Amino acid sequence: MNGSLVVVGTGPGKAELMTPATQAALARATDLVGYGPYLERIPPTRSDQCRHASDNRVELDRARLALSLAASGRQVAVFEAVETGDPAWRGLDIRVEPGVTAMLAAAAEVGAPLGGDFCAISLSDNLKAWTTVERRLAAAAQADFVIALYNPASKARPHQLGQAFELLRRIKAADTPVLFVRAAGTAEAEVVTATLGTADPARADMRTLVIIGSSATRQVGRWVYTPRGERAPS
Amino acid sequence: MNGSLVVVGTGPGKAELMTPATQAALARATDLVGYGPYLERIPPTRSDQCRHASDNRVELDRARLALSLAASGRQVAVFEAVETGDPAWRGLDIRVEPGVTAMLAAAAEVGAPLGGDFCAISLSDNLKAWTTVERRLAAAAQADFVIALYNPASKARPHQLGQAFELLRRIKAADTPVLFVRAAGTAEAEVVTATLGTADPARADMRTLVIIGSSATRQVGRWVYTPRGERAPS
Repeated sequence: MNGSLVVVGTGPGKAELMTPATQAALARATDLVGYGPYLERIPPTRSDQCRHASDNRVELDRARLALSLAASGRQVAVFEAVETGDPAWRGLDIRVEPGVTAMLAAAAEVGAPLGGDFCAISLSDNLKAWTTVERRLAAAAQADFVIALYNPASKARPHQLGQAFELLRRIKAADTPVLFVRAAGTAEAEVVTATLGTADPARADMRTLVIIGSSATRQVGRWVYTPRGERAPS
Repeated sequence: MNGSLVVVGTGPGKAELMTPATQAALARATDLVGYGPYLERIPPTRSDQCRHASDNRVELDRARLALSLAASGRQVAVFEAVETGDPAWRGLDIRVEPGVTAMLAAAAEVGAPLGGDFCAISLSDNLKAWTTVERRLAAAAQADFVIALYNPASKARPHQLGQAFELLRRIKAADTPVLFVRAAGTAEAEVVTATLGTADPARADMRTLVIIGSSATRQVGRWVYTPRGERAPS
């Protein structure tokens, strides 16, 4: 099977945070396939290039693979489809270009909160059990990781971040820094700094990344950071 | 106090993985301060710009802050110094530009292994107790996170990765994928794919990032990925 597929990390929003490697791959592509709002971030490239938002159900031969893969706009969907789809797809030239993730862009807005060991957890239970989320939150808190929460809330799931904070409060100190970083890495970035004891879950929406400090995380002026050095646990 | 300081993520090595925002900050700077090997990655910018490798002990007035901060080449050192140093430093204009981290570059070399919830753990016990490392490894394994290990081995610490594998084998399945990704995001990138049951810790050095799958992590051809969908725990 001819053809190549490059899975790109487009970064959090600003063109200045998109790597040259991703920009070059986008410029070379005949077709761009992806979640509509992510496609809209990509500046115009060539006039002979087709863009297919993933809610566009028109099947184009050359884009069929990518269209069928990219519905979620997530890199993993590509490999899932390669595993379960037409065996010939395994012969495709596939490459991954990494990008600055939402978590890293959010961390940069507030300083260096991910300086120590950290976990990333999606609060969405669309694709996994809520008990799995709770088990991971508890483990991350007990082992004193910095915790980055993806997908903290949506219209369909307004209550889960509050439940997560309640669970974490039973394990972690009330003065643990909690950061709500909305639209990180874009011109509309907003940061709210709180503590676990008083953090209001209503501060978060689907564009918010929530970072909860470890016991070592510190605030200095408007910055929050986690030093590499940690005392031995008492 | 006049002056500004931009803490930049320079990416894993290739210029193609350095964001335009970081490139612009480097081009504007009067002084570049950092760990020598990282400074060497940065292409020449302006002829009137000074470069200070962090092992250069010459104290220059304008670079004194950054020199004293940047010894470890780590972002967090900056905020640590702002907290503990001259109170006037808090008035500096400080900004952070995120970059593609070694973990993300390593993941891209092998597919999408960090597609699910994941943890990043440094195996180095230079700045924290080994018991803390063990506690985090056990928590991450018990809660079925994908685990990315930074600093898996050095000449001074040749045995810790083996100890970590032993600990993880008591909790995780022997067929769990283990990835050794060396020099990710550079022209010399190398990937070795193994399983937890047979992984040889001698495969890792200081330039290696080790990724250990969750129970959901799958291999398809030369790719390894972790699907977002997970079954409920049995």
